[in-house]
Amino acid sequence: MPQLIPEPLSRTAFAPYGEVMMLEGARHYPINQGTTERYHALACADTQSEGGQTILSVFRAQPRRLPLPVTIMERHPLGSQAFVPLSTDPEHAYLIVVAPAGEFEPQQMRAFIARGWQGVNYGKGVWHHPLIALHSVSDFLVMDRMGQGNNCEEVALDGSWVLQAR
Amino acid sequence: MPQLIPEPLSRTAFAPYGEVMMLEGARHYPINQGTTERYHALACADTQSEGGQTILSVFRAQPRRLPLPVTIMERHPLGSQAFVPLSTDPEHAYLIVVAPAGEFEPQQMRAFIARGWQGVNYGKGVWHHPLIALHSVSDFLVMDRMGQGNNCEEVALDGSWVLQAR
Repeated sequence: MPQLIPEPLSRTAFAPYGEVMMLEGARHYPINQGTTERYHALACADTQSEGGQTILSVFRAQPRRLPLPVTIMERHPLGSQAFVPLSTDPEHAYLIVVAPAGEFEPQQMRAFIARGWQGVNYGKGVWHHPLIALHSVSDFLVMDRMGQGNNCEEVALDGSWVLQAR
Repeated sequence: MPQLIPEPLSRTAFAPYGEVMMLEGARHYPINQGTTERYHALACADTQSEGGQTILSVFRAQPRRLPLPVTIMERHPLGSQAFVPLSTDPEHAYLIVVAPAGEFEPQQMRAFIARGWQGVNYGKGVWHHPLIALHSVSDFLVMDRMGQGNNCEEVALDGSWVLQAR
């Protein structure tokens, strides 16, 4: 049975799939008369095709149990989609499964583990698993596209690929 | 000395200035095979004028002390700006001072107190005070505009208006 073992999330490893939001390594500079530090442009929305608007929503995710058979992957062909957990607990973690944009190929799937409030911004058309919260009900702030057109495509898998604990 | 006393933040009270992000009263529906609840479109970016892009940044704000003389207000004529604190502590709070878009009038200022992870999305051109964190260094996720053009205007006040504790 093929297994997906989560890798630590990093900008380099995740680059083929989108952006990682984290403070380490981010460009930053003081604003507001020195009372605030701005960590600038951690993610950029790509949501304007076909008249799309950029919105913020909250996703409240039930925790999942591992091992988790991967039975569905999805992509948003008209826009990027960013997730930031509303958690300041450095022990908070969630899992990510992605595959490159284009024709879906199961053997191209990779898994990542995000910690604390690390966020990800899936590039337009990048295949990803629906939210995989761990341990507890978890709220995520989501920046994505609202507008006309079919912006969600899904592919079903037979569950033979299994996401494991690290 | 004129005083600004913070009002509780609510969608109705804040409507002239922008959107309030909170779960109570938000439209929501299940997604992801029922494992996630989507609280939809809590805020909508208005950032596309003059070729603007929508970005996510983090602002790390030093706490301020009350009473706080109001010596500066600012506005972003080319785009909305949304703030969501990265805090799950229901006791977390921050303060907001706003005045309507258009010519700045000090006597039109109003103050609000936001609690927990309640967020606000200032409408394009709405006057607002720079971030006012309380008690501790506070991180905020910020959705605003990146692009050409002068998108920040400031007005100086003489400090005679003072923001008080509630």
